[in-house]
Amino acid sequence: MRKVAIIGVGSSKFGVRNDVNVAELAFEAFKPSVEDAGITPKDIEFVAVGSTGAGAWYEELLPAVVSAEYCGLTGAGLMRCEAACASGSAAFTAAYWTVASGQAEIALALGVEKMREIDTPTMMEWIGRAGYYLWEFHNFGLTFPAYYALYATAHMAKFGTTEEDLALVAVKNHKYASMNPIAHLRNKITVDDVLSSMVIAAPLKLFDCCPVTDGAASIILASEEKVRELKIDTPVWVAGIGYASGTANLSKRLDYVGLEAAVSASQMAYRIAKTSPDQIDVAVVHDCFTIAEIMAYEDLGFCKKGEGAKLIREGQTEIGGKIPVNVDGGLKAKGHPIGATGCSMIYELTKQLREETVERERQAPMKNYAALAHNVGGTGHYCYVTILRR
Amino acid sequence: MRKVAIIGVGSSKFGVRNDVNVAELAFEAFKPSVEDAGITPKDIEFVAVGSTGAGAWYEELLPAVVSAEYCGLTGAGLMRCEAACASGSAAFTAAYWTVASGQAEIALALGVEKMREIDTPTMMEWIGRAGYYLWEFHNFGLTFPAYYALYATAHMAKFGTTEEDLALVAVKNHKYASMNPIAHLRNKITVDDVLSSMVIAAPLKLFDCCPVTDGAASIILASEEKVRELKIDTPVWVAGIGYASGTANLSKRLDYVGLEAAVSASQMAYRIAKTSPDQIDVAVVHDCFTIAEIMAYEDLGFCKKGEGAKLIREGQTEIGGKIPVNVDGGLKAKGHPIGATGCSMIYELTKQLREETVERERQAPMKNYAALAHNVGGTGHYCYVTILRR
Repeated sequence: MRKVAIIGVGSSKFGVRNDVNVAELAFEAFKPSVEDAGITPKDIEFVAVGSTGAGAWYEELLPAVVSAEYCGLTGAGLMRCEAACASGSAAFTAAYWTVASGQAEIALALGVEKMREIDTPTMMEWIGRAGYYLWEFHNFGLTFPAYYALYATAHMAKFGTTEEDLALVAVKNHKYASMNPIAHLRNKITVDDVLSSMVIAAPLKLFDCCPVTDGAASIILASEEKVRELKIDTPVWVAGIGYASGTANLSKRLDYVGLEAAVSASQMAYRIAKTSPDQIDVAVVHDCFTIAEIMAYEDLGFCKKGEGAKLIREGQTEIGGKIPVNVDGGLKAKGHPIGATGCSMIYELTKQLREETVERERQAPMKNYAALAHNVGGTGHYCYVTILRR
Repeated sequence: MRKVAIIGVGSSKFGVRNDVNVAELAFEAFKPSVEDAGITPKDIEFVAVGSTGAGAWYEELLPAVVSAEYCGLTGAGLMRCEAACASGSAAFTAAYWTVASGQAEIALALGVEKMREIDTPTMMEWIGRAGYYLWEFHNFGLTFPAYYALYATAHMAKFGTTEEDLALVAVKNHKYASMNPIAHLRNKITVDDVLSSMVIAAPLKLFDCCPVTDGAASIILASEEKVRELKIDTPVWVAGIGYASGTANLSKRLDYVGLEAAVSASQMAYRIAKTSPDQIDVAVVHDCFTIAEIMAYEDLGFCKKGEGAKLIREGQTEIGGKIPVNVDGGLKAKGHPIGATGCSMIYELTKQLREETVERERQAPMKNYAALAHNVGGTGHYCYVTILRR
């Protein structure tokens, strides 16, 4: 497998973006990424677009075509990748393989999602379909907060995790989002704010849930030869990608205190990258709900099973702690534009590894220059774990 | 780049498949493919699913998850690939890169599409969105037959192609579909049948258009090492994949007598496979409308620009002619389940290259054991060209 580096990254402002259509939103992320890489759109040979809601919750059926065209990429090879909420990581993986296999020298992963064109109840119905529609949706009427509430309840019952522990995740992630100009929710909140917010699916309350966000992120990948040719100062190398899928039939899950797919995907990524959890300097994890971040600590091996709550209680996942997590605000507060999230994670880690995070108080200290992204689709229906190294 | 072979193929029956859901339809193609390869589902490390209409014209938002689970593939890496009507080829390409890059030894491309769950006018509206919805659909109200009618009119005006020439394509493809048990439309038709059928978008008539079809096809890919280990008798090698995209804004097209993306994609495929059009023994091309097959002859270099009609008139694209094309019945008569078509093309070519087409009268004679698949998304918004060799 050829070595592949990230040579340019860009992100749009996340939030309610009714001011732009999907192609304009994609361009807002793409433009800074080509400038960052010091290339032109014509240098890009293949484009993988991450987007989930095409034709379902926003009207363009072919977002890859219209986004690529708006970015001046017409002519390049093109596909759209979908892996539910991990669609951005699927696109990143496809772009990575294009270069790793030797088919292309420069490829682009472009994650983009418009989620605010329809009303929230309709949006919730659509996201509820991101399981097995025939098995679960008709029979049980579960929506996504309810799926994760099952996990929260089980984790609390088995390990003594409390509602306050969940709230601490939200407080931490809002704190970092308040420093991140591209984040959707920039207000600092307290544990009391979380505990007193409206119950969505007990024990999860409004502030335990990520917002419904529009956004885009753009990542340019290149071969080692191109990195040399372009004289890239700070290439960030893809050290390994792991992936796995999990059952969509929740009655088949072994337990409700972790995601099997996340465990498998991370073990695969550590093996390929020849590294281990204690070597990671900074991580972004899929905190669509606060409980998801606590389970991620455990699934990724940042602590033992059942000790996730202890990690957040001790402040170990803040800057200065053992393993800073979601110092961009996470899905919880930066926002979760479904098809963009995976690319947005890579955007953040690239900035962190280059130590060029503008807001210095959220720059993680680097020891091994290794970073990890954990992107889940559905309730562990998909998982992609990516390890980067400088 | 590592060498990659096709080691197993399977197809569902194409047609109106209200008897099965999307997962059951996928399984119908998957089961014979694992049997063909002599492996078990657990041997498959990565799955790329081609499907376009998820959440739009059929209700499952995550067809990759439910299809993979139904096939016993839970645990494997997973993504869905979309490239409009070339989604099957996008999935094939992603699965190919997984193995070519060295990430996996065995990968699966699974194309599946349910298109008959909704009424035809709604279906037509959806397919009409497969351009730039904001630019073209609202303003001009063009649906897909109308897009291709623009091309037919231009080709007739510039090169003297006639309605009878277009009809000959339909007659040929129905003839071969009549011999193919998995085809959707198995009736033989005459030039008069085509000319007297209902006008859809002049000059295209009902029998110039492919049907709306449900179907699935499954392709298993493996590394050279795995081919040896599994003692595969007749591996079919992927010699090269070319791809390109074209503008979604039809006013920007240079002309209306061919598809630029198809020309670029085929030149790339020939270059990578180190071959040329005259070396190809059999081809499947994207005949969503009869004019599309005639343009494909020219775009792929099987004849000079403007001489496509001559090729069909002379019978050169039938068995016994210079280059047999769509001897499975093509999209026109075998059917066009959008996300499955690209994989279905590879299915047919694999059988042809192995010389195991059961209906001997549609087995193309092999000289160089080289075959080509041409899969277009939209009106040349996407194109993938794949060259296989035994």
